[in-house]
Amino acid sequence: MRNNVKMNLKVALCQMHVIDNKKKNLINAKKMIKEASSENVDLIILPEMFNCPYNNEKFIEYAENKNNSETLIFISNLAKKYKVDIVAGSIPEEENQKIYNTSFVFNKKGKIVGSHRKMHLFDINVPNKIKFIESDTLSPGNEFNVINMDYYNLGLGICYDIRFPELSRILTLNNADILVFPGAFNYTTGPPHWKLLLRSRALDNQVYVLACSPSSDENSDYNAYGHSMIADPWGTIIAEAENEEEIVYGNLNLDKIKEIRNQIPVLKNRRIDLYNLKINEIKK
Amino acid sequence: MRNNVKMNLKVALCQMHVIDNKKKNLINAKKMIKEASSENVDLIILPEMFNCPYNNEKFIEYAENKNNSETLIFISNLAKKYKVDIVAGSIPEEENQKIYNTSFVFNKKGKIVGSHRKMHLFDINVPNKIKFIESDTLSPGNEFNVINMDYYNLGLGICYDIRFPELSRILTLNNADILVFPGAFNYTTGPPHWKLLLRSRALDNQVYVLACSPSSDENSDYNAYGHSMIADPWGTIIAEAENEEEIVYGNLNLDKIKEIRNQIPVLKNRRIDLYNLKINEIKK
Repeated sequence: MRNNVKMNLKVALCQMHVIDNKKKNLINAKKMIKEASSENVDLIILPEMFNCPYNNEKFIEYAENKNNSETLIFISNLAKKYKVDIVAGSIPEEENQKIYNTSFVFNKKGKIVGSHRKMHLFDINVPNKIKFIESDTLSPGNEFNVINMDYYNLGLGICYDIRFPELSRILTLNNADILVFPGAFNYTTGPPHWKLLLRSRALDNQVYVLACSPSSDENSDYNAYGHSMIADPWGTIIAEAENEEEIVYGNLNLDKIKEIRNQIPVLKNRRIDLYNLKINEIKK
Repeated sequence: MRNNVKMNLKVALCQMHVIDNKKKNLINAKKMIKEASSENVDLIILPEMFNCPYNNEKFIEYAENKNNSETLIFISNLAKKYKVDIVAGSIPEEENQKIYNTSFVFNKKGKIVGSHRKMHLFDINVPNKIKFIESDTLSPGNEFNVINMDYYNLGLGICYDIRFPELSRILTLNNADILVFPGAFNYTTGPPHWKLLLRSRALDNQVYVLACSPSSDENSDYNAYGHSMIADPWGTIIAEAENEEEIVYGNLNLDKIKEIRNQIPVLKNRRIDLYNLKINEIKK
C-alpha cells in the first residue's frame, strides 16, 4: 500500500447479460458504465468475456488484436468520458495466431495501464454436469500482473485462476490491495465454491476481492452463475448480486487492510525460513 | 494416496471440555475415546491442548518431556487397548528448556508414529476483543509432518497453522489425504473464520480436513469456539459440533479425493513453470 490521503474507493461490478452479438454487448457495457458513473464510483469491473459468449468457437470468431481492437477503443473512450478506472473484464485476444483470455485495465484518462492473460486454463469434466476444455482454443498467459493505479494496486486473475492460492498470494506479496477476478462459474461449481473461494482469498491475504460474472442465461451454451460479489479483508461478503443483470456497488476502505494485518499478522508470520513461494517474474 | 483395498474410514472428533486438572482431563479423554471406539471408528482426534488449559502460564506448569510423559503413556495404552489410531490433539511438550505445542500420533498398537510441533505461533491482538501472545512462552516447530498410517496419510497442523495456505499445500503435495488441525479458535475469530478456513483448505487441496476444538467454557481465561468439524474434498462440511462437549463422527471415502481431482484437476493445473512452493525439508 502507498501513503496517500485518499483511502476509500467506491467500486461497481457490472453483472452484464452477455449475448451473441458484440456490438450489442458493447452498447450494454456502455449503458452500465454510464449508470455506475452516475453513482460517482472510482473503479468499474466488467465480467469475464463481456463482449463474447463463453464458447470456444465464439472465442475464435470474436477475437481481437489489441493494436486494432474495436472493444478496447470503445472502453477507452468510456473511461476517459466518465473519468473512471475500468477493469474491462476479459475479451478473447488474438496475437500471433494464438488466442488468450485477457483482461485490460484502463485509467481515468482512457489509457491501458495493464493487462492479465488467464494463467490457469479451465479444463473441467464433472460427468453429466459440466464439461469445458478451454485449452482446446485458448493459450495461457505467463505473467503475474499487479497494476499500480492512482492510490491503490490491483492484482489480476481471471475465473479459474482464483482456485490457485499461489497466484493470489504472489499478487498480495507484490503489494496488491485489491484482487480482481472477472469470472464465469456455472451452476455446478458456483453454488459450492464461488463464494468460498472469494472469501478465502480475501481472508488469507487480507485484501479486498472483487469478482464479476456475467448474469445467468439458461438458454446459452454456458449458463454463468452470476452472483458477482465483494469480499473484504476479514473474509466478509459486503455486497452480492443475484443471478440477473445488475450493478453491485461497494465502498472499500483501504485502511482496513492495514488494521486487520496488525490484528492478525499472518503475512508477517509466514515461515519464509521454512517455505518460499518463488516466482519467475512479476510484471507491473 | 496408496493402492489399498480399504478406502473408507470412520473418524471421531472428541470435543472435550478441558479443565485445569491434568488427571481429570486424561480421565475425560479416556471416557470419550472409549465411547468413540464403541462406534468402531478407525481414527480419533483430540483437541489442541487437551490436557491443559489454554494459558501461557499453564503451558509451563503442564509441560511434559516425551521421554517421560504421563499423558503420552496414557494415550498409548488407550490406542492399544481399543486398537484405534489416535491424533492426540496437542500438549505442551518440553525439550531442552523449550516448550512446544505438539501433536503426537499413535497407531493401533499404541506406538507413536509421528508428531507435529505448531509451526506458526499465535500472536494476535484485536483491540478490546482478544489478545494472546503464544510466543511469550512457546517455541515454534520447524518441520512439515505427513504421517503414513495403515492405508491413509495424515498431514498435521495445529490451530493458527491453518491460516497459512502454504502449509496445507505442502502437506498435500507430500501425499496427505487428510489434514488434521487440532485447534482452539475463539469467539472473535471462530464465527467469521474457522469454517471458512477449514472448507477452503479442503477445497483448494481436494483433501479431507478434520479440525477438533475443546468445547466452550465461558468461565475459563480462553473461551474456545468449539464447532469441531469435518470438510470433504469438495469443500462441504459433512459433520459439525455445537460448542458443548460432544463427539463428532464422520465417514471418509478416500476414493472421493481421486474422483474430485479428476473432475477439477487443480493440483495438475498448477503453473509450476511459473511459481514454485519450495520447502526446506519434509519429515515422514
